[in-house]
Amino acid sequence: MLEKPADTDRPLLPALKARWSSRAFSDTLLTDDELRDCFEAARWAPSAGNGQPWRFIVAPRDDAAAFAAALQCLHEANALWARHAAALIVSVAQTVRDDGRPHRTALYDLGQAVAHLTVQATALGLTLRQMAGFSAELARETFAIPQGFEPVTMVAIGRRGDPAGLPETLQAREHEPRRRHPAAQWVFVGRWGQAAWHEPAGDGE
Amino acid sequence: MLEKPADTDRPLLPALKARWSSRAFSDTLLTDDELRDCFEAARWAPSAGNGQPWRFIVAPRDDAAAFAAALQCLHEANALWARHAAALIVSVAQTVRDDGRPHRTALYDLGQAVAHLTVQATALGLTLRQMAGFSAELARETFAIPQGFEPVTMVAIGRRGDPAGLPETLQAREHEPRRRHPAAQWVFVGRWGQAAWHEPAGDGE
Repeated sequence: MLEKPADTDRPLLPALKARWSSRAFSDTLLTDDELRDCFEAARWAPSAGNGQPWRFIVAPRDDAAAFAAALQCLHEANALWARHAAALIVSVAQTVRDDGRPHRTALYDLGQAVAHLTVQATALGLTLRQMAGFSAELARETFAIPQGFEPVTMVAIGRRGDPAGLPETLQAREHEPRRRHPAAQWVFVGRWGQAAWHEPAGDGE
Repeated sequence: MLEKPADTDRPLLPALKARWSSRAFSDTLLTDDELRDCFEAARWAPSAGNGQPWRFIVAPRDDAAAFAAALQCLHEANALWARHAAALIVSVAQTVRDDGRPHRTALYDLGQAVAHLTVQATALGLTLRQMAGFSAELARETFAIPQGFEPVTMVAIGRRGDPAGLPETLQAREHEPRRRHPAAQWVFVGRWGQAAWHEPAGDGE
């Protein structure tokens, strides 16, 4: 198993520092309790007006039909490694409110719920990788997702595996350093473009 | 100071359990180090293709002009309590990519960055409340936010204060129980609407 704690400029909460989106999963399933703990974290995320505009469809690997159906929604490059995950999850935002008005912050709120789930999963020693690379249309059809709801990402969750089990090109990507733009490029003070802090040149583009 | 740990159905990481969106701030400012630690957490959030489509404009209360300008963007009901925060932050998503294509997950990714910031802030003993109730148009104008970027929320961050210092109607809201829909209402297995787990009736609605 490959640990890749973030090369942070500042100290971070261990679960935030340890989190990273590996593609290497062991073949072990998750217990019901582990999955429920992760969703409990999502449950207590904040949302605009406490609207909780999130839904999740879980396909555990031992539900062979659901798992195969979820796997089919993924772009091939993701299906290649995600087929070893313990479960696939479709994250869904309620983009139209019950009264018909658009829900401006639905995707933002959903992102928060998934982030809380991710932090809890990391604290439990689990790992997950979120994917934008899937067919939202196929997911809608496959899982009968109604209008007014939008599939936004799919999530592969499970236990860390050995990257040596991955195809070679993906192994190389697992070992690449993790990079982020330095905060000075995107944290402004007072007005747009005015860097909040001056920092040594980081890993930015 | 009022602690309101989530009444969870399952055990949670302490920083997730303790987090809640109080409106009561003490008048103390934050140190530069505290703010930087919070943004470092945002920095290491995951995003689609590592695109990091987030920007933040910080208005610390001791930058009187910037703070007043940010306060003016808030709806009055928020400005009422948010004026005591140590800093106001405008969260901004890059909704159009550099090459002109729309960025489908920009708000979702921004939500994750703010969630990571929130978890780190909570771990540091700070508090914050996110707001959708502000004028995005005025924020764009005030802070010269360019086209292709969308102000999504504003965040009041600081140290916990005594709710007794709030106007009476807000005091009452501070003491209301925190509620969430039970997971069985929004976690489905295999297909839409099929509850993943059956649970005792919770605090729904």
